[in-house]
Amino acid sequence: MPGLSCYAVLHYLGHGFAGWQRQAAERTVQAELEGALERLTGRRVPTTAAGRTDTGVHALHQVVSFTMPDRWNPAAVCRAVNAVLPRDIWVARVDRAPPGFHARRHALARRYRYVVGCDRAAHSPFRRPFEWALGSSLDIGRLRAAAVGLMGEHDFRAFSAAGQPKVHYRCRVTVAAWEARRDAEGFIFDIEADRFLHRMVRFLVGTMVDIGRGRRPVTDITRLLGQTNNAEASPPAPPEGLYLVGVSYPRMGDNA
Amino acid sequence: MPGLSCYAVLHYLGHGFAGWQRQAAERTVQAELEGALERLTGRRVPTTAAGRTDTGVHALHQVVSFTMPDRWNPAAVCRAVNAVLPRDIWVARVDRAPPGFHARRHALARRYRYVVGCDRAAHSPFRRPFEWALGSSLDIGRLRAAAVGLMGEHDFRAFSAAGQPKVHYRCRVTVAAWEARRDAEGFIFDIEADRFLHRMVRFLVGTMVDIGRGRRPVTDITRLLGQTNNAEASPPAPPEGLYLVGVSYPRMGDNA
Repeated sequence: MPGLSCYAVLHYLGHGFAGWQRQAAERTVQAELEGALERLTGRRVPTTAAGRTDTGVHALHQVVSFTMPDRWNPAAVCRAVNAVLPRDIWVARVDRAPPGFHARRHALARRYRYVVGCDRAAHSPFRRPFEWALGSSLDIGRLRAAAVGLMGEHDFRAFSAAGQPKVHYRCRVTVAAWEARRDAEGFIFDIEADRFLHRMVRFLVGTMVDIGRGRRPVTDITRLLGQTNNAEASPPAPPEGLYLVGVSYPRMGDNA
Repeated sequence: MPGLSCYAVLHYLGHGFAGWQRQAAERTVQAELEGALERLTGRRVPTTAAGRTDTGVHALHQVVSFTMPDRWNPAAVCRAVNAVLPRDIWVARVDRAPPGFHARRHALARRYRYVVGCDRAAHSPFRRPFEWALGSSLDIGRLRAAAVGLMGEHDFRAFSAAGQPKVHYRCRVTVAAWEARRDAEGFIFDIEADRFLHRMVRFLVGTMVDIGRGRRPVTDITRLLGQTNNAEASPPAPPEGLYLVGVSYPRMGDNA
């Protein structure tokens, strides 16, 4: 059975999930989505996501591939799945994909955004679930100088969770930019790379924020990039400030 | 015991509350706040709010007056109460008030904001709890023409919940303005008045949105303002789009 090869673009709030990936006895986005698809089709529909977001991390553009039974069309999948999903997940759209399309293996790059709040009002319940309520100011010049050091291909073991054996730890960073926010006092960090190690963005932001506060020298980023463990990195920034915001594919165009 | 007469400015998310006012067996903002103050002081601390927000309605600037035991100062109250309040209420600040200050009786005006989303993405879990996900477009010219009719003093019984006997139903509206949103496709309605009847803003928005969709004539606002019940108003707009955003007091300045 060939079926309808398709991909969905998902938004989800991170708070209520132990991340994307299905785990026994934990509420995860994959388990909720596959549960919804099984309810619609009466059979197991395995799904693959472009980025395996961690516990508490948000998504504004997660790409998920799966194959539906032949009688479905993309618009019907989108409508039906939104009708049965819980309120903290939303499918922005569903489109036909080339047969055999694999949201993770075929992705060329992922883009993440990290949001930091520096004013007291970052503690408001309207903002705290959506950013790092830092409460102190940062030097944008130092943040930017630190981020420059990330550009290009490096081994990022110094900025990743331990105990994740991989063939290699190199990632090619094509965007690493800090901007001042317009909606509040604070900063936004955008990073794009071909791949990300576990907790890499949060380790990077944790260390850069310490640089921005003047607690570490700007040169620490390039110095740590040579290291083979995360012993010298600052603690990872909290997950509530982190968003998966885009995934790029060959030929399908940039979905960021 | 004179005590420390003070007022607090509160933010709260509407979803988790049956409104401001204490009720048996319901979770309310007043019950949570008074519970927190009792935990800090070991005694009952009655509170009064400027606006008795309804179930599900948000506040970005609720003003609450109360009297603390003499040994407290405003900064200590703010810190301590935030440490014990649940995460969906936040005290932005606490200040000394004149003795006998009463947040409701002394308020000259309240200001509310209503947020409407007209694009599909209003259904995203990042937006749906904070606006009316209308999903269809509105004619800003018709919205504005309707709002003009609200300005000045009128009997608003036609736009209020039934069964709320009052001495009179007149409210003096000093601001009634629709603006296009900058952050998304949609509109914001701001209204300021000396007082508001129960569900008044939601009834007004429900009726004006029907006018903006072309389902009712613009003249319905002024026609309905002459009526003595809400039989002809459109259903009230949902609470998740509504925010208490400011309260004005004499001499204390405008806290909007």
